[in-house]
Amino acid sequence: MPVTTLQWVDGKIRMIDQTLLPTELKYLHIDNLEVLAEAIRNLRVRGAPAIGVAAAFGMVLAGQQAPYSDKKQFLAGLDNAASFLKATRPTAVNLAWAVDRLLKGVRQRENLDIPDLKRWLIDEAMALYGQDRDINRRIGAHGEKLIPQNAQVVTHCNTGALATVDYGTALGVIYSAHANGKKIHVWVDETRPLLQGARLNMWELAQENIDATLICDNMAAMVMRKHKIDLCIVGADRIARNGDTANKIGTYGLAVAARHHGVPFYVAAPISTIDFAIASGVEIPIEERAASEITHGFGRQTAPEGAKVYAPAFDVTPVELISGIITESGIISSPYELQLPKSLKNT
Amino acid sequence: MPVTTLQWVDGKIRMIDQTLLPTELKYLHIDNLEVLAEAIRNLRVRGAPAIGVAAAFGMVLAGQQAPYSDKKQFLAGLDNAASFLKATRPTAVNLAWAVDRLLKGVRQRENLDIPDLKRWLIDEAMALYGQDRDINRRIGAHGEKLIPQNAQVVTHCNTGALATVDYGTALGVIYSAHANGKKIHVWVDETRPLLQGARLNMWELAQENIDATLICDNMAAMVMRKHKIDLCIVGADRIARNGDTANKIGTYGLAVAARHHGVPFYVAAPISTIDFAIASGVEIPIEERAASEITHGFGRQTAPEGAKVYAPAFDVTPVELISGIITESGIISSPYELQLPKSLKNT
Repeated sequence: MPVTTLQWVDGKIRMIDQTLLPTELKYLHIDNLEVLAEAIRNLRVRGAPAIGVAAAFGMVLAGQQAPYSDKKQFLAGLDNAASFLKATRPTAVNLAWAVDRLLKGVRQRENLDIPDLKRWLIDEAMALYGQDRDINRRIGAHGEKLIPQNAQVVTHCNTGALATVDYGTALGVIYSAHANGKKIHVWVDETRPLLQGARLNMWELAQENIDATLICDNMAAMVMRKHKIDLCIVGADRIARNGDTANKIGTYGLAVAARHHGVPFYVAAPISTIDFAIASGVEIPIEERAASEITHGFGRQTAPEGAKVYAPAFDVTPVELISGIITESGIISSPYELQLPKSLKNT
Repeated sequence: MPVTTLQWVDGKIRMIDQTLLPTELKYLHIDNLEVLAEAIRNLRVRGAPAIGVAAAFGMVLAGQQAPYSDKKQFLAGLDNAASFLKATRPTAVNLAWAVDRLLKGVRQRENLDIPDLKRWLIDEAMALYGQDRDINRRIGAHGEKLIPQNAQVVTHCNTGALATVDYGTALGVIYSAHANGKKIHVWVDETRPLLQGARLNMWELAQENIDATLICDNMAAMVMRKHKIDLCIVGADRIARNGDTANKIGTYGLAVAARHHGVPFYVAAPISTIDFAIASGVEIPIEERAASEITHGFGRQTAPEGAKVYAPAFDVTPVELISGIITESGIISSPYELQLPKSLKNT
């Protein structure tokens, strides 16, 4: 069984500090909103579905921390917490989606007592948690049909158990195919600058005894030219109504290489990743990270002092380059504009 | 003036230890073949033209170290040194080309005394050194015509003064355009795994006050999508007769992205980089480097113990993706097979 990234234990969020992997497996026990926000901002927990669930538990913590003598103050405390959490990372829609779902639910139950509202918050966060587990398994079951026996797959960034509550989206598809007895070899993009592929995918795949080879991102095109690659599969941080997909920086370049080599390119993501409010990828805000993540990546300075750096955390892959989006409701393909809302209804 | 990477001073090779850049500028003073071989193997000196000249001086050192009482032993010593030097790095053809040129020259002068042969070796190495300086400036003069005013250029790996004796091939073209008063902005691929772009290009371009922005290799496609890029320009380690070009890993992916976005893609290299003995890129041997360059690259372990790694140092870009090859004799374009030998004759 893949690792459990995140749990609610004894009134605290128990989560792996992913910045320490692969050399150290350490759990954080978070009972405080500020500490959680720091953990999200600094990628101790990352991956769109995982930060969605983490933020939901953040709202539970906010309920615990809010002044509970006065309902109005309590609700204002939750409002503030929601804004605070949503500001931690702007691109992934799951975070805002989860926070808003809890906030809206509380607003709809304003007549309840504060203790009941707190109970509702925790129940709802637990429901989201359970949903994420369930959704990932359904994504895996749909997606694994795309994976042939003896598959050669390329993936980018971590989309496994560590990016979700416990199973994964794109890696979940691979786990599911593996569980069904398919032999798979995964080419793992290291995923600069924060090396989620090298640090996290290689660790997860080793836990599951799935054959994997680490490459630098700039080798993927050569690998596609030299080997028969069956498909690329990646996750998503936000998908526009038309299917344009924001995902970890480097995804777009991989999609371009896949198209050049005739390799199918799939996105695996829960429907909560789809932002129906925006028509296309140009509207997705792209988080820029600190230059030091590139120039001082892992303890050593690797660019001159004062070097100008461009550090987008994500890029947008236009829908024309995407063969299909694997969701918990099935695999959606062109025309996405029509199929996405239909899938949502099926959920 | 760009920095002088390599010089022959007082019977020693004086060269920058490039592994310490950008944080430390330190010169090595090498008077010993074994030390030189270590420096080439570990990329203290790198770049096809620079290692060609370094190896030529290596043959001078070999002449100094060889037993000089007996001509036969002296010649055998040079033979051994040539094989030893050629084994340090297999992909760049300039190294073997320079070594063979010195070896052949000595063989043609076997009737000379040993002291005269040694003098000839040093004269010939100095001639190659001077040629490299001259060739780079001619490449720059031809190539700069491709660079428009207010140019946006993407480059990969270091091809500047540090990759040559003192001016550069692809970066030499940029220096030349800059010297002619053109305003240029360079997007610099960091160039995983050894970060020659981040460490060396950013350092060189800062010395020259040329505007540059560092990106991770996996951002180049996004940059091409978002900005109007005028051209990509890279160097070469070996070019086959048909124009297929081996260069630093990641070059091929960049060429694929350039093609997708309609961006012209140029290779800048001296004619000594062309290997007329091979018909196409499939015959170019691709050096594989140690996995640790990827898994322990930044001073910290970034992949799990025992992770399987693919670590090619180079890839081959097929000639179909190359808009032109900028040589000291002019810009060669399709059909390369016919034009390359003609250029050679002009030299």
